[in-house]
Formats: sequence, C-alpha cells, structure tokens
Amino acid sequence: MEVVDILKKYSKSIDEEIKNSLISVDPDELQKSTLHLIEAGGKKIRPSLVVLSSEAVGGHAEEALKTAAAVELIHTFSLIHDDIMDKDDKRRGRPSVHVMWGEPMAILAGDTLFSKAFETVLQTEVDGVSYERVIEALKTVVDSCIKICEGQASDMCFEGNFDVSEDEYMNMIYKKTGALISAATRSGAIIGGGSPVQVETLTEYGRLIGLAFQIQDDYLDVISDEENLGKPVGSDIIEGKMTLMVVHTLSNASNKDKEELVSILKADKDTNVARAMELFEKYGSINYTHDIAHEHVENAKKLLETLEESEATFALAKIADYVLQRNK
Amino acid sequence: MEVVDILKKYSKSIDEEIKNSLISVDPDELQKSTLHLIEAGGKKIRPSLVVLSSEAVGGHAEEALKTAAAVELIHTFSLIHDDIMDKDDKRRGRPSVHVMWGEPMAILAGDTLFSKAFETVLQTEVDGVSYERVIEALKTVVDSCIKICEGQASDMCFEGNFDVSEDEYMNMIYKKTGALISAATRSGAIIGGGSPVQVETLTEYGRLIGLAFQIQDDYLDVISDEENLGKPVGSDIIEGKMTLMVVHTLSNASNKDKEELVSILKADKDTNVARAMELFEKYGSINYTHDIAHEHVENAKKLLETLEESEATFALAKIADYVLQRNK
Repeated sequence: MEVVDILKKYSKSIDEEIKNSLISVDPDELQKSTLHLIEAGGKKIRPSLVVLSSEAVGGHAEEALKTAAAVELIHTFSLIHDDIMDKDDKRRGRPSVHVMWGEPMAILAGDTLFSKAFETVLQTEVDGVSYERVIEALKTVVDSCIKICEGQASDMCFEGNFDVSEDEYMNMIYKKTGALISAATRSGAIIGGGSPVQVETLTEYGRLIGLAFQIQDDYLDVISDEENLGKPVGSDIIEGKMTLMVVHTLSNASNKDKEELVSILKADKDTNVARAMELFEKYGSINYTHDIAHEHVENAKKLLETLEESEATFALAKIADYVLQRNK
Repeated sequence: MEVVDILKKYSKSIDEEIKNSLISVDPDELQKSTLHLIEAGGKKIRPSLVVLSSEAVGGHAEEALKTAAAVELIHTFSLIHDDIMDKDDKRRGRPSVHVMWGEPMAILAGDTLFSKAFETVLQTEVDGVSYERVIEALKTVVDSCIKICEGQASDMCFEGNFDVSEDEYMNMIYKKTGALISAATRSGAIIGGGSPVQVETLTEYGRLIGLAFQIQDDYLDVISDEENLGKPVGSDIIEGKMTLMVVHTLSNASNKDKEELVSILKADKDTNVARAMELFEKYGSINYTHDIAHEHVENAKKLLETLEESEATFALAKIADYVLQRNK
C-alpha cells in the first residue's frame, strides 16, 4: 500500500470525528473559523499515526479515532495561532484564519479547537476505553501542547540570535514539531493497550520521525525547486531562519565565514542566497543535514522491527520513508 | 469570618500549586509572561470556590487544590487573550502581558497557561482522587473553556448590533463569566466526592452567582463612583457595550427612545452618558438590573440551604453576598 492510500484509509472517519466535535460550536462566525483549515484538507499524517500506533499494539482503530481527531485539532489550533504570530497570510492554499476573520476571532478559533481537542479525548471513554488509559493519553497530549508553546517561544527567542548550539536547535524543533508527532504515536499506543515497552518504542519512533520531518524541511529549502516547494528556493535564508544547516555551518566555520553567513541571514534585502549555499557546501552542512534526517528515519524503522509485524507496522515504516521522499 | 479572610485561607496553598505548575516553563521569557498576572495578585474567588465546594460535600481541601489552581490558570489565560482581543492595556494595575512582551508571546503565554491547567487537573490523581472523579472534573473544566470562547465570540458578534434579546444576552454572559464560576463549584463538588444531587446543587449555585457577578458589574457601571470603579462612571455606555440595562431598555422603550439610546451607544465621541442613564431610569432598567442580581444571589443562597450546614456552606453564602457588596 502506498502512503497516500495509508493516509486515506482512516481519513474519512477522522474527519467525521472532527466535524462531530465542532458541529455544536456557536456562534456561526466562531464555528466557521474553526472549520476553515480543517475543510482545506491537510494530509492527516498525525491522526493516522495515532490510529496506526494503536493497531500496531493490537488495539482497535475505532477506539483510537477520538484521540486521532484530538491530535489533528491541536495541530490545527497551533497552525492558526502560529500564523498570527508569524504573520503568515496563507495556509493550505487558503487565506489564513486571521486574514479571513481578524486576529481576535482567530485567537478564539485556536482556543476553541484546543478545548475541543481535550473534550474529544475525554469522550474516548464512551468507546469502552478504561479511565486509566484515557488519563494517560490525555497526559501525553497535554504535555505535547506545553512543548509546542515552549518550542514556538524558543524559536521566537532565537530570532536574530545566531549563537545557538546544535543541541539547543534540536531541542527547539523537537518541542515545536517532534513533540506532537511523538504524542500521536504514544497516545495511540496507550489507547490501544500497549505494554510499557511498546508505548516507549512508539513514542521514540514518533520523536525520531518528527525530528526527521523538520530537518528534511530545512534540507528541502535548499535542494528542492520552486515548483515543488511552492515558494522560492532558499526562503529560509531570505527570512534569516535558524536551520540545521545554519547551526552546523556556524559551529564549524572560520570566524570570517561565520561573520559572512550571519550578515547574509541578517540582510533586509537582496539576500545573497547563492553565497549562503556555498558556505553550507563548504562546511559539509547540506550533506550533514541530509544524513541526520536519514539516520533518524533508519533508527525509527529499526525500532518498528522490535514490534510484532503487522499491516500497521508496515504502514508506519512507509510513513517513516515518506518523511524523506516528499519534496514539499 | 469575613470574605477577605475566607479568600485568604487557601490563597497561599493555591499560589504554591500554581507556581509549582509554572516553574518548569522554558524559555525564561515565556515563564515570565505566564507569571506576570499571577504575581499581580487577584482575589482568588474562583479557586477558593473549588476548595469550598469540595469541603461543602465532605471532601478534603488538599485534594481540591490542584483543580483550584487549574481554574485560576484558565481564568488567567482568558484574561491574557481577552486583553489582546479587546486591546486593554492594563490589568490588575500592571501593563497587560501583550504590552510587556508583544502579542505573539502573549498568545503563547495564554496557550501555555491553558495547557498547564489541564496538566494540573490530571495530577490530582497523585492526591489519591479516583480516575473517574478526575475525568469528570476535567470534563467540567474543558466544557467551561469552550463556553468562555463561545461567550467571548458572541460578545464580539454583538458589537454594534443592538438587536439582542435578554435571553441571548444572559446566555452570552453565562458563557463568558458564569461558566467558569459554575465549573469551579462543580469540579470542586466532584473532586470532593459529592452525590449527583450535591454536584448539581453546587453547579447551579455557581451559575447563579456567576451571572449575578456580571449583572452587578453592569449595575455598578452606572451607580458607583469613579474612585471605586477605577474608571469613569458610564464607561460601558461610552464604549457602546451591551449590558442588561441596555437590553432591558431597548426591549421596553418606545421606538423614538430606542433610536436615541442606540445613537448614544454608537457615538464615537461626546457620548451623552447622562441621557442614556435617564432612559435607563425611565424604563426602570437600573432597578430591574439591581433586582435580577439580587434575585440570583438569593436563589443561590437558598440552594446552599439544601446542603448540610458547615463552615464551607457558610463561606459560600458569604461569597454570594459579596458579589453584591463589592463596589468595584
């Protein structure tokens, strides 16, 4: 089965759970703004990981659907608030929520999706899952929300500060991107009744592919093409963003090259993207980034081999590969 | 015991729970912004209601402290986000969080407090409270968060629309103000192990004093004085805000008076506050507002009489009275 088919398998059921959750939101303006990005689609990787992780430990897909929906609601909440903070006007090919309804309603739409996510996990009990598992799943999801906020705050604090170590950078992207993906696989394994070892294995699998996902994003920004990216090559350089390539080059370059890269990243206009790429190349940072992403995915797949082979573990391995195969 | 002493009784323990919850927040900027309003004080009415409601049904105060802290965290989250939406630059005598750290960090501070609130309730299990009670308390708290968002959205949608019925207005203020106060008393009763009847009684008590609290705010805006209010008398009229007096006058006035009041409320400058008050007076709306607030408080106190008399029920009755006695 191809990844696109894997992600399609539960997509409809997940969408139904999400829409059930949001149907009662009142007033209309608030409901519409919460549904805006949901209706625009999205690949549903995170909620699919919840269901597959549950199945991988022998659980029933149906029991994991509400937690899956919750993870997608949290992802959507974070996109809406991030778009306000980062002043991003487009998302999933549509105007962002704050562009459509203004910032106050967009803040509320995010807060509502956030609340609805917890309500949805709490309803898992209806599906016959024990209180204990629901509480453990909730703890996992809540913990990832705290990390998402901390990761976004660190990212904001890093802006214009190029004195960031690789450890600090990895910790930031773990919190910002990895934590929710890891919470998806962990909460799925918990709801599915996995043993402590199985739960930890899938947590770590999620953490590794989550990190690989972000690192691959960094990598694609310089090696992909505009048509696939949907934005110019080197956008991260133009925006002066911290990426693994920047961190790696800065910690290996001569003082002169370091200064040059920082001044390119800080430039307000006519950013010398080509020269930044030359510097990345000079210090092996592009290959380094490629290798780290691959290493994370390989380690994630090795972890899967410790679980009993099933259609679900096969699908999880496919998703790990997909993190590197996508070109946008 | 006076209300000020009742609120002081658990204030220190509640503060400790809140600070324990926020001590791990990272980076520093995010932690400081989450603590800003907490450190500014606040009367701690909501968390005290959690503890007292737990005690009123025979529970131990200690078991209810984490849920109490969570309710205060949610209250603080909603203040931070409301201040961004309403462009309020001051809160608790300090510059608002978004004034100090900018809107992006203030959005994140709110989101972090929100997440931390749920984490805190989930830790109640450590205090030996059953999973079932923790889940029921969480459902209550989550439900109030959804209502807070809906209430704020309705309030925003009402702006400039004076075609709002009394029922619609009461529903809006219930969601915006009453729901969290009602969730405080309900979750306290649940954690304390109250019977279904006791839980419903305290839920309704909370709803009634929550509504009375907001209605009394409406009332004080026209009958108090600037020194006590900390803002000019008639501020709500100047801001063109919907209040129970406005709703009552508009639904009872002649067409001519109705038009006049609407035009006063819509005025951008030189708002004729005195004339608006005359119109309120003409249709008995000031007395009506006073009476509704008193009626709610009386009904709330009658409900308490159905519970076994204790220091806690006595304190809850005192808090109900306090809703009407305060002058700011």
